Formats: sequence, structure tokens, C-alpha cells
Amino acid sequence: MTIKASNETGRHARIRLGMVGGGQGAFIGAVHRIAARIDDQFELVAGALASDPARARTSAKELGIADDRAYGSFEEMVKAESARADCIEAVSIVTPNHMHSPVAKAFLEAGIHVICDKPLTTTVAEAEELVALVRKTGRVFVVTHNYTGYPMIRQARAMIANGELGEIRLVQAEYLQDWLTERLEASDHKQAAWRTDPARSGAGGCIGDIGTHAYNLACFVTGLELDELLAQLSTFVEGRRLDDDVQILLKWKGGAKGMLWASQVAVGNENGLTLRVHGSKGGLKWAQENPNQLWFTPYGQAKQLLTRGGAGASGEASRVTRIPSGHPEGYLEGFATIYAEAARAIRAARVGEMPGPEVVFPTVEDGLAGVKFIDAAVKSSASKGAWVRMT
Amino acid sequence: MTIKASNETGRHARIRLGMVGGGQGAFIGAVHRIAARIDDQFELVAGALASDPARARTSAKELGIADDRAYGSFEEMVKAESARADCIEAVSIVTPNHMHSPVAKAFLEAGIHVICDKPLTTTVAEAEELVALVRKTGRVFVVTHNYTGYPMIRQARAMIANGELGEIRLVQAEYLQDWLTERLEASDHKQAAWRTDPARSGAGGCIGDIGTHAYNLACFVTGLELDELLAQLSTFVEGRRLDDDVQILLKWKGGAKGMLWASQVAVGNENGLTLRVHGSKGGLKWAQENPNQLWFTPYGQAKQLLTRGGAGASGEASRVTRIPSGHPEGYLEGFATIYAEAARAIRAARVGEMPGPEVVFPTVEDGLAGVKFIDAAVKSSASKGAWVRMT
Amino acid sequence: MTIKASNETGRHARIRLGMVGGGQGAFIGAVHRIAARIDDQFELVAGALASDPARARTSAKELGIADDRAYGSFEEMVKAESARADCIEAVSIVTPNHMHSPVAKAFLEAGIHVICDKPLTTTVAEAEELVALVRKTGRVFVVTHNYTGYPMIRQARAMIANGELGEIRLVQAEYLQDWLTERLEASDHKQAAWRTDPARSGAGGCIGDIGTHAYNLACFVTGLELDELLAQLSTFVEGRRLDDDVQILLKWKGGAKGMLWASQVAVGNENGLTLRVHGSKGGLKWAQENPNQLWFTPYGQAKQLLTRGGAGASGEASRVTRIPSGHPEGYLEGFATIYAEAARAIRAARVGEMPGPEVVFPTVEDGLAGVKFIDAAVKSSASKGAWVRMT
Amino acid sequence: MTIKASNETGRHARIRLGMVGGGQGAFIGAVHRIAARIDDQFELVAGALASDPARARTSAKELGIADDRAYGSFEEMVKAESARADCIEAVSIVTPNHMHSPVAKAFLEAGIHVICDKPLTTTVAEAEELVALVRKTGRVFVVTHNYTGYPMIRQARAMIANGELGEIRLVQAEYLQDWLTERLEASDHKQAAWRTDPARSGAGGCIGDIGTHAYNLACFVTGLELDELLAQLSTFVEGRRLDDDVQILLKWKGGAKGMLWASQVAVGNENGLTLRVHGSKGGLKWAQENPNQLWFTPYGQAKQLLTRGGAGASGEASRVTRIPSGHPEGYLEGFATIYAEAARAIRAARVGEMPGPEVVFPTVEDGLAGVKFIDAAVKSSASKGAWVRMT
Repeated sequence: MTIKASNETGRHARIRLGMVGGGQGAFIGAVHRIAARIDDQFELVAGALASDPARARTSAKELGIADDRAYGSFEEMVKAESARADCIEAVSIVTPNHMHSPVAKAFLEAGIHVICDKPLTTTVAEAEELVALVRKTGRVFVVTHNYTGYPMIRQARAMIANGELGEIRLVQAEYLQDWLTERLEASDHKQAAWRTDPARSGAGGCIGDIGTHAYNLACFVTGLELDELLAQLSTFVEGRRLDDDVQILLKWKGGAKGMLWASQVAVGNENGLTLRVHGSKGGLKWAQENPNQLWFTPYGQAKQLLTRGGAGASGEASRVTRIPSGHPEGYLEGFATIYAEAARAIRAARVGEMPGPEVVFPTVEDGLAGVKFIDAAVKSSASKGAWVRMT
Repeated sequence: MTIKASNETGRHARIRLGMVGGGQGAFIGAVHRIAARIDDQFELVAGALASDPARARTSAKELGIADDRAYGSFEEMVKAESARADCIEAVSIVTPNHMHSPVAKAFLEAGIHVICDKPLTTTVAEAEELVALVRKTGRVFVVTHNYTGYPMIRQARAMIANGELGEIRLVQAEYLQDWLTERLEASDHKQAAWRTDPARSGAGGCIGDIGTHAYNLACFVTGLELDELLAQLSTFVEGRRLDDDVQILLKWKGGAKGMLWASQVAVGNENGLTLRVHGSKGGLKWAQENPNQLWFTPYGQAKQLLTRGGAGASGEASRVTRIPSGHPEGYLEGFATIYAEAARAIRAARVGEMPGPEVVFPTVEDGLAGVKFIDAAVKSSASKGAWVRMT
Repeated sequence: MTIKASNETGRHARIRLGMVGGGQGAFIGAVHRIAARIDDQFELVAGALASDPARARTSAKELGIADDRAYGSFEEMVKAESARADCIEAVSIVTPNHMHSPVAKAFLEAGIHVICDKPLTTTVAEAEELVALVRKTGRVFVVTHNYTGYPMIRQARAMIANGELGEIRLVQAEYLQDWLTERLEASDHKQAAWRTDPARSGAGGCIGDIGTHAYNLACFVTGLELDELLAQLSTFVEGRRLDDDVQILLKWKGGAKGMLWASQVAVGNENGLTLRVHGSKGGLKWAQENPNQLWFTPYGQAKQLLTRGGAGASGEASRVTRIPSGHPEGYLEGFATIYAEAARAIRAARVGEMPGPEVVFPTVEDGLAGVKFIDAAVKSSASKGAWVRMT
Repeated sequence: MTIKASNETGRHARIRLGMVGGGQGAFIGAVHRIAARIDDQFELVAGALASDPARARTSAKELGIADDRAYGSFEEMVKAESARADCIEAVSIVTPNHMHSPVAKAFLEAGIHVICDKPLTTTVAEAEELVALVRKTGRVFVVTHNYTGYPMIRQARAMIANGELGEIRLVQAEYLQDWLTERLEASDHKQAAWRTDPARSGAGGCIGDIGTHAYNLACFVTGLELDELLAQLSTFVEGRRLDDDVQILLKWKGGAKGMLWASQVAVGNENGLTLRVHGSKGGLKWAQENPNQLWFTPYGQAKQLLTRGGAGASGEASRVTRIPSGHPEGYLEGFATIYAEAARAIRAARVGEMPGPEVVFPTVEDGLAGVKFIDAAVKSSASKGAWVRMT
């Protein structure tokens, strides 16, 4: 019942981290910063934390970033950092979606590893360009589909890979929230404003903000690739410019079927990401709001409740478990695991190596898949009932 | 905390009941018999309990039915009963689906009230014929979509009718089982055999057996009518002749959207009928396996767990509640409520009246709606992605 | 997935049943009547349903009891029934506690089997007298500790008897309600009135009404006998004349320890009877409000959720299961199982036999144990902290 | 939905922290280090991490502590640090229990703030001495009864203080684990070894290790003081030298009653700390394994499920909430809140002030109360059924 010392390699070895976005009023930037701290692998030393230069500098000061590394823009930051001997090794991009692509390109081209929030970009073309650039530069690129960091998600993935569910037949994903039940963007709610603005969010609202998470999780856990989808995107709140609910039929390669429902107007739901997988031999069920549990239901046997750190935990789950069973790990720990995996890849890159096969994180290719998923769903919905093939 | 005496009107007033189907080896017949007994409104006095005359008579003997009313066929039964002074007043039809229509017609034409299992018939034409016959004969006709008998379902319906959820946006229904995960019909499993046989079950397998229940429940609770559907029917088990999984996108009249998932191969599920409704002002969630609870989540307020018989129970729920909160009522009590409602309608008919507006049960028209739903889903799935309009 | 025909032996064989108590305004009488009907083994033909003769007759009329068997008092009933050729074979006693003993004695002495509500009597002396009388008369005597009728309770008992938990170390029982949180007996609430009145309830309030149920269940499931107890009885509501909360330390023979908490003022609880047992090899947990589930936690293995009718159900559970898994059975079905077991014993007695060893119900000896438990708890509490030895 | 910037004051202001204990093989030291990092208020700069000097230095190296501040003993550490201009401001004591007192005294006397694990000491005398020393030195002293850091615990405390439960009648606490079900200390399990060793753990085993947590939580949430207790301590595992299960009856000042059950052999429980409080107007229920939820059951109203960050969250809960509802915070975040509160007190002390009244953490007095509780329970149990008065 001890926390693995491997999570605690010395601070002298901390990775120098910069951040773009995440200043005052932001949500996800602070999450990234805590996630980066939990396993003590990163040190935040530079930032361009807001689109407004003054707010960027004030935000940096609050975080204890040295004045000379508190930048007014990401362009300034790339240039200045590149010129320093102690240049940042990695940058976290936590801006609204439309900025992911230009910022990521600039840092990749400067040879800096990137940890980028999702969705990867607002267009498929931009995403493909990033994939090419990552391949060319050889830099580590991590997309923070953070839910893949939960230990019981790692366990579910391992169990399916090991054949414990048999042939997969059904993959059902949900991501339900209710915070956009009313027209929050009409008030000065910063999160709601950009997430419902096509110029900053892209062509997808709910589908991009949370639908991609659900899709990524389904792919990650099952190892399946999507063949076709048929989507019904809805905007329930009058005056809203993007979808706030999406319902999708799925056909997976190999014959599995499924549905994906994401909503930001499903009153009574907070952050209801759930995944259910049923195969010829058994089923799995996981719900994010109590992430330390995983239901495993082998056909014809008693239902089993597996717990993080408990009896039956797989090596893949234990590897990313910090504290004993019954001591709940939460959202921030799951997010931190993505940072810890990134750190392992970055440390390997320091010495010109690849991380071991046990190191797993959402890649730029996974990010591209997410953007293609948004694109296909928007197209299917616009066509009022067409199956759209993923390519 | 007393059980209403209205549930216990004297046995001298019991309704004389016959049964077609439900002999040895059947499941649902015994359920109907217990349901009919619980509130002491019926007395089973006659039956044609199996398609095989010998088995029919043995089954009747086991149930204490007098020899002269233990019939070898439903035709014989109609004829003989019609000739008796103490003729049955009502008949329960609990045969495989394909027999519902001929049996129901015969008894209706003999002036006998009908309590019929679902789905109503195997074709839309038969169902429409029954609707016309019920209108012509004026007999009581009850379809045992039994889940509408649960008190918390009555409560949910009342809350939505009262506007407590605001404008309905989302209606999500699921009915998940796993008992057909393997090819049970290849063994001598009677239930599995007829339910996967198009000749006895009709064109729908899972969609007819349980999908209609979920659809009926969604309509019953929300009061909405379906406008269009788009269905994906699957048969996962090799050699099976009907669908064992169905996934449907729904467009409701008035603008609500939804999904319906029914499966008999979703390993880990026993009888997982759940309904979630989300409106502009609140949400509801109910799950059949713990039917005494109903989640109510008014937007911007604490989540509420309403319980059968507990604080906040509506009159509509209390009316069909037998015992105090915390003393769970189950499937048989919910089913019994359908019989109790039928009894009220039949007693009213005895004296040429209609039951009061508080008496609610699934009608022959609801049965027709269910058959149209099956028909539309089968057509949509066959067309590989067409929205089919309900008429 | 069929209901066992053994539950449905013919009505010609129904047992003629009488009832004392349970008229208008009563709760438990109606429960007994439904329970007696569910499996179709009894026919209610006579009653002395209230202490007031007029109300007794009106109540009988409502239940369809023939006028000449609607008695004004239990004394009248015993006498008149004894003189009939079609005398009742069994009587259900559902009066307030203080009447259990005189009524039971009268019917036993008339050679009539008795089904008696709990607690058996209001004094140990009366209970011992009944035990002796049952032995002398050889009549069937069933005490409706109804929770022993739940299938998963039968399963728990079988698992412990089979050694699946190893040596039992801890037995924790709770029975929590909140309906006496305020001074309900000051209004004209009939249930509250007699239950808080020492003259009708005996020396125990909460301890007698529900504490005995919890104690009986713990003994039934574990097979253990209590060695000593130490009790703290409290009366929280001002003006109340009996305890409304009881907390007890338990020492079981063989070395197990435990606690029992029963309360009628634990706000937020409806009928919260729960049992937890922990042994050297595993644990069990069961809660009455969702009685179809049983948690089994073998040490060092994944937690298992066993369900009524589901995978892993024992023969002892299946024997008393009516409908398939996922179709919840509730309080009334559990109660009905006690009646079904009573019927088996009574039918055996008809032909001078004993029922098979699989027939299990709470006996008059179990009833005596419950009365001794109340007595010991009251004494311990009065002594402010003495361990009282059970004898 | 933003994380409060107040959690992120600049790193230039980080508090210089030392640690005693918590080297290789320890559990709680790593927890303290993560907790100290999460809100970025501390920097670990020195340590005497193990009783063995060599292991102490290796452990320090792994954590990136500079060689000249990696001490071989706490005595060496106090002396050396006191002589430095950049002396640590606070020390975390995470040794086995018997070392808490000597280490705490040494650092307090050196003018260094102390964050000490529980139980405070192994004897009442030592604890009283520490209380006196804290008063004399004016240093901040925090006992890591970490469960008081959970937001919903803060909410529960505020609701009771505000009278939302009315007069408190019942306080029930449980802390159930199963990791000592077998004789783990006979293997080389370091955690089990010292926790079952009276020389290092004190006179209480389970009662000291987790019983004190449950007791502290009950006091913290209700604001009540214990008047008397009566305890039954048990050792179920043969050869074990301390109790592994404890069951206690409680009498609170003002008339409330309750029970406390702590066990390390309750198979099936991982870290099952739960608290239930019932008053004249309502009830509360909280369980550590899903700490983001709190049940509130006002008498006569629908049951409410309050969630961290959700509708109905109190200011006291929001103040210590980092991320939005539905994004679970866990054990480490709750622990981090204790460190954040400590940081606020220490920063106030830097400028000779007291922290504001909103800053809440378990104090040295709370630690003393815990030690007295252990002492009373051990005495009561030894006397076989005596009520022991708390003084």
C-alpha cells in the first residue's frame, strides 16, 4: 500500500514547462497546472496565459512566473524561449479550440514538446497538418483526453485486449451535462461564451466539447475503429449557435454496434461520462463520477465490482494507481496520469529514446480521429439521416 | 400507513376470469394469475391453457380449474363459456404473439372483456382490426404493458403533465437483458424458442418482446407522440432468425429528441428497463429494477430522490400504492395494478358505465401504437438509415 | 424462467383461514391477507377483525367474509368455528401485541394452527407458556418474522452454513425508520398509538416493534445464538412512553461480536433493515429496501453482487423465487413465502406428517427468543451498562 | 466553473517544508507530499525520512532533496535547520505514532510549525504536554485528521451549525477496513508491523489507527462533545497484539446518543468511513468512498442528494472546492485542503496574525481529544462494560 517511488523522481529532473492560455477566468488551465504538479515531474516556468497581454502578465504574476518569462503573446513566447539556454522543454496549450493549431505549430517548429487540450483543432485539415508536423519534428505530442488516465479505464482496456469480454458486440458511450440548459452564453460566462461560438469552438458545440471525449474513450478502451456513423445534432436552447445535444448511431469495424449520446442540456447530470461494453462473453460498465469502480459481468457468473487498488486490479491499473483502494482518486489524479505519461515520453526523448510500451497517452493521431469524428457527425446531421463513413 | 380498503372489495364481487395460454412451462401466465389474485378482484374459473389439449387439461387441473371448464382449445372455450349462465366476464390472453389476434377476436365477439399480453398482434392490419372490434363491441380491452402500473411511473407521468419538467427536450429509453446472449433457442428452451421464431413472434424479436415495452413506457410517461424514427436492428447470435438488439433514434412531435436501446444480448443486464426524461426545467430518471425510487432533478436545485409512499408522492402514485414506503413493492404488484385497473373498468361496464378518469391502463389503441412502432423500426432498419414517419 | 408450479397447487386444496385483528385502520392485517393470496394456498373464510364488534363485522363484510363467520370477538369465533364441520384450519393473529397470547392459546387449544405476528407476546412467561402449548398440541405455529422469507436471505443463510464466510466474527444488524420522529401518537394515528403504549405493546417500543425483527434475522442468517447483550434504550420524543431508539452491543456464542441499532427516529430512513456479516473468509451485506441483491465479498477476490434468480443463486433461494432475475420481488412476496411455508407444514399436518427439512419458517421457539431478547435489552438498559446473559 | 486563484498564490511565497518519516516503504509520507504540492503552497526542502540514516538519505535523494538537507535523524535535522538562514518554516511528522511526541516537541521548541499525523501521541500525558507547548510557543500545529478537508464534510458541519437538522439525537460513525483480516504483520508488511505493535502504535490498534478518525469526524461535523463511552475492543486474528475491531456506545453532551464501529477485519470494506447524523428536523449521511456526495433528508420532505460544487453547496464547501461538480475530487484533494489551511495559518503567523475564522483545521486540542478517546475506550473495554466519562 505504498505510493510508487517512481512517481517521485527528483525535482532536479523536473521538466521545464510553459503554458499558453489558462489565465484568469479560465477553467482548464488550472486543472493542467495541478495535474502537472501532482507527480512532481514538471515546473511551470513560462507562460502566455491570456490573449490580452496585460491580463496575461497579471495571471503569470499570480502564479509566480518570473516577470521575464511572463509573455504577452504565444509568438513572443516562442521567440524568447527559443533564445534561452533554459528554454522550456514542453508547452501546455489550454486556449479555446481555434488557437490550438497555430500555437501547436509554432512550438513544434521550435522543437518544443506539446501537451494540447482537446479537440485537437477546429478542422480536419489543420489536424492532418499537425500529424505531419509531429512526424517530421519527432516531438512528443499529447492530447489531453484525460479520462484515459483513470486506472479503471486502463483496466477495462486491458481486460478487453485480453479477450475477457469475448467478441465485442455493443459499445455504448454517454457524456451528459446540464450546465448549458439555459442560455448561459448570453450572460458574461466566459466558458459558455467561447464554447458556443463557432469562431472559437469550431463547427461542433457539444459534439466537440464532450462528444469527442466519449468517442475517444470508447476507442481507447475497446481498441475498435469506427466504420460509419449517423448523427442527430440538436440545439435546444433558443439563440444558441452550436449544438447542445448529439445522438449518434455507430457501426464499428468488425461488426460491433453502438450509440453515443452527449448532451449539455440533460438536466440532472453533472459530468456523466459513462461507457458500457458488451461482448459475447461478458460486459463492462464504468462511470466517471465514481471512477474508482468498474463493473465486470462475465456471462453466467456473479456480477463483479472491481475497485481501483482492490482485488483483481490489473497491472495496467496498478501502474497508474497512487493510493490504496477505498481512498478515492479523482479527476485531477486521472489528469495527472496523462502528465506523468507525457513526462515519461519527454524524459525518454531527452536521451533520444522512445518510452516503453507501457507508457500510454492520447496521441496527435488520436486527436485527428476526434476531429474527423466531429466532422462526420456534423455532416451526417446536416444530411438528415445519412450514414457517413469514417476514413 | 394502511392499505386502502378499496383494494379489497368483497370476493362475492370477484370477476370471473378465463385464461388462454399460460400452461406448464410458460412464464407469463403464472405472472398474470398472481397479478389477478393480489388485489382479490378476479377468480380464475376457466382456461384453455396450452395448444396441446392434453397439456391444457393437466395444467388446468394443477390450477384447480374445474374439469368442465378445462378446455382443449380456445375455440371450444368460447363456445362452451358463452353457453353458461356463469360465463367468464373476462379472458386473459397469454399465448405467443401470433395467437393474440384470433383469440382476442373470438372472445370480443362473444362479448367477453379481454386482457391481452403484448405486443398486441404480429401485424398492423390485425391490430387495426382489433381496435375496430373493440370500438364496435364496447368491451374493455387491456394490453399488459405492465410497467405502467408502477406507482413511481404514475408519479412521473403526473409530474410531466403538471409541467414540472418544463418543455420536454429529451426522452431516452432502454430495455436491456442478456438472457439471449447465447443461442438458447437451439436447446429446448420454450421461452427462447417462440420468441426467436418469426412465425410465432412476428417480424420483430427483441424490438417486439421488450422494445415495445420501452416505447410504451416513454409514451405513457411523457404523453408525447412519436413523429419519426430511424432504427438499426441487429442479430448478434449466429443462426438466430430475429433481431436481438435494436438501437433507434427518435423524433417526437413538438421537437423532443431521443434514443431507444433494447437488447437481449447486453451481458450483465437482467431486466434493465430505464427511462430518462429531460425538459427545460428539470429531469426524471427511473429504473425498473428498483422501481420504488424516482429521481427528480429540478434545474438549479438539489437532486431529489422520491420514493413510493414517501414524502412528495403524488396522488396518482398513492392511489396505486399498497404498502408504506421502504417496504418494496415489485414487479408483481405493478402488474397487479393493471389487473386492478381492468377490474375497475369491468365493474363499471357491468353497470353500463365508464370508469372514472383516474383509472388508467394501456388500451387497444396503445397496443396498436406498439405494433406500428415495431413495423416502422423493422422497415427503417431494412432501408439502412431511413427516417420512417409514424402515421 | 418459469414460476414453479409447486406454488400453484389447486384451489380445491386451499387451507381455510381465519383472522383475528386486521380490520379497518389496521396495516398488517391487509399485508397478511395479500401474502396469503399470492401463492393461492389459503382462503380467508372467517374473522374477528376488530376489538369493537360492530367494526369487526363491517370489516368482515368489506372483505367478503360470510355474515355467519364475521365474529364480534375471538372467543366467539373459536367457539363457533370449533362447532362447524368446515372449521378453519388456521388462524392469523394480527392484533396488537398484548392480545397475541390469549388469542393464540384459545385457538391452539381448539386444535387450530396459528400464524402469529411478532413479537410473540409481551412477557417471557406468556411466550414460554405458548411454547409448551405448541409442543403439547402439536399444532403448526408460525411467527411472521417475514424478512426470513426473502430469497437472498435464504441464500445468505445457506452460504454461511456452507462455510463460505469461514468463522463468523462480526454480525451487525440495523433496522431504521423515521415515522415516529414526531409525536404521532398524540394525533389519532392508530398505528403509533398502540405501538407506543406499554399496555398494548409491552415493555419495549422500538425494540419490540422492529428490534426483534433485526435480531431474528441475524440469528436466522448466521445460525448463531446470542450469549450476552448490553443495551442503551432511548426515548427522544418528549412525552413518549416507550423507547424509540435502541443501541445494543452483542456477544455471540463462539466468539463473534456485533451491534444492533434499531430506531424509529432516524430521519431519512423508511424501512432500513440491513444485515452485515463478516467472517474469516468473506463478508455478506443485505438491505431490505432492495432485497433482490446480496453482496458477497470473499477475502482477496473481487466483490460479487448476487441477485435473486441470477447467476450464483443457491437452491435455497431458487426454491422461494417466483419470477426471473431483474423482475423485482418485494415485501409482499417475502411475506407470502412465510405463508407458503406455513401451508406446506399445515398440509403435512393434515396427513399426520412433518414437512420436509427444506421447509423453513420462524417457529414459536424463535418467537420466544425474540421476547427474551426484548426482556434482556430492557433490563440491561435499566441497569445502565450491564451485560445481560441470554438464557 | 473556475478554480479559485486563491489556491495559486505565487511560488516565491511557498512555505519551506521539512519532513520526518515517510521514506522508502512508507505510505502516508507520499500522501503528505502530494497533498502539499496540489495547491502549490509548500516546497519540500529538508528531511529525516527514515529511522535508519542510510535509508533516510537514499529516500531524500529520490525526492530531490539537496544532500546537505538530507538528515540521518530528526535531532540532527532540528539542529542543522535551526542554524540556517533559510530554515524550514514547517515540518510534517509522518513517523509511527510513538515518535510523534519527541519529534513534535523538538521542532516546536525550535520555533518551527508542525503538521503531525494522527493519533497525536501514544499517551494522554504526552498529548497534554504538546498542547501546553503549542500554547507556549504560539506555533501553528495541525493534526492531519484529513477527512475534515472534504468539501461535503465542511457542508455537513455548516448545515448542523445552522440548525438545519434541529436538535441532534443520533450520531453514528463507522470506519471499516479489511486489510488486517489475516495476520499480515507476520509477513514483512511494514505498515501492518508497526500498526499492530504496542511499542510503536500505543495501547490502541484499530481504535488508534482509524477509530480516532471516525471520532474526530463525528465531533468536527456535529460540534458535539462526548460525555461517556462504553467500548468493546476485540482481537480476532490470533497472535495479534492489539485490537482489530472496536464497537463503542456513545453518550454525547446534550443528550444525543450514538455508536462507533471501527474494524480492520470487516471483509469487503476498503476504507469505509461513514457518518450518519439524525436530528429532530432532518438527517445527513456521508460516505468517504464517494466523498463528493452528501445525503440530506429533511423530515417530511423528499430526500436530497447534495453534490460538491452542485446546487445547494454551501459557502463553506465551495471555499475548499477546486473543480466543478461531477469532476470528482478525492482523498488527496481532501488531504491537500488540510495543507492549504495550514498554509493560511502559517502565512498569517509570518506577519504575526491569526488566520481568519473561515480557516479550519484539526488542532493540537483535537489531537488531545483523540488520544483521550483511545485511552477511555481501552479502559472501558478492559473493565468489561463500564461507562467511562470523558474529562
